[in-house]
Amino acid sequence: MARVSQEHLDARRRQILAGAAHCFARNGFHGTSMQDVLKEVGLSAGAVYRYFAGKEDLIAAIADEAFANIRRAFEEAAELTPPPTPDILLGRVVRGVFEGQVYGMERRTCAALIVQVWAETMRNERLAKTLHDGYTGMRAAWAKLVDAYRAAGLMRADVPADDVARTLIATAQGFIAQEALFGGVEPDALENGLRGLMSMDPSRIS
Amino acid sequence: MARVSQEHLDARRRQILAGAAHCFARNGFHGTSMQDVLKEVGLSAGAVYRYFAGKEDLIAAIADEAFANIRRAFEEAAELTPPPTPDILLGRVVRGVFEGQVYGMERRTCAALIVQVWAETMRNERLAKTLHDGYTGMRAAWAKLVDAYRAAGLMRADVPADDVARTLIATAQGFIAQEALFGGVEPDALENGLRGLMSMDPSRIS
Repeated sequence: MARVSQEHLDARRRQILAGAAHCFARNGFHGTSMQDVLKEVGLSAGAVYRYFAGKEDLIAAIADEAFANIRRAFEEAAELTPPPTPDILLGRVVRGVFEGQVYGMERRTCAALIVQVWAETMRNERLAKTLHDGYTGMRAAWAKLVDAYRAAGLMRADVPADDVARTLIATAQGFIAQEALFGGVEPDALENGLRGLMSMDPSRIS
Repeated sequence: MARVSQEHLDARRRQILAGAAHCFARNGFHGTSMQDVLKEVGLSAGAVYRYFAGKEDLIAAIADEAFANIRRAFEEAAELTPPPTPDILLGRVVRGVFEGQVYGMERRTCAALIVQVWAETMRNERLAKTLHDGYTGMRAAWAKLVDAYRAAGLMRADVPADDVARTLIATAQGFIAQEALFGGVEPDALENGLRGLMSMDPSRIS
């Protein structure tokens, strides 16, 4: 048997995940068979099953990788002093997701895949665990940033950091849902919208 | 044939929609048959088909009614001077959705139904139109509120009102996605999170 480099194995694995991601985005998880995936990537069953035992493995690996990408964006941001404000950072994360960071998918295809994963998660315990872990990691990363905002005097200190983290993650999720549903969602709109909100000092209001 | 009051017809229609909503939330749109709906509501096929020709009619009617509820909350808010700030208003809307406003469904069931509708919308043109119309209406209602915030000197004037509208809708959508995926999402967290964000005046930052 010929020896195969790790690089080659990684590239092959990525090729399979990209093909599967496109199938799931197009036809949903239930509307996609392993045969569809084989056809999409142009590989034999033997070549694909060497990496993934089935659809569940594929979708869990896709979700894992997407979270790893997003986590990286947060970690890079948290190292800056002062950290970028939420409008800049969320704009960057959503732009990354929309601009081919995930398997070179078109913006709307990628958003559709994410909503498909959400729908599937409600009936799939393994996927639920993957998403729960990824989401918990994101919350912790955002909460750290919120602490940094406070340390820099940029945010009031009397609301729980985790509540701000959840709200910011929600905003990104909602933009992804809007792109999946209607298309034409620009990360600029998210940045502007957050800037508008951030200008509403509630202490000035009440 | 006995004459049937409009009130009775409306109650019957509502009963069917509530049963269908529970089925869709539990098993997804594709995992639910008209037989399942008949069984859930305990009515004959004749009684149900008198109101709805099939699953598509059911899910479109459910989505229409959910949007009508949310629109009402916005319209009521826009009549107040000054209008309630986004934290208060979004908290109220999400609380209403979570607290049985939609067919008396439990919070997580209701959130799961909404995510199922999103997933289905990507493959169903009629539902896509229903959601598009509902979303367009919400955007217009929020944009009016943003104008009111500005008129009251509560928000900077140099970001497009529609961008703020989209961002606020996204935040509510994201909270619904989080409840569907993980449960335990409190509208209080959304209110607090928005308050934190609203305290980050970007003009103070840059």
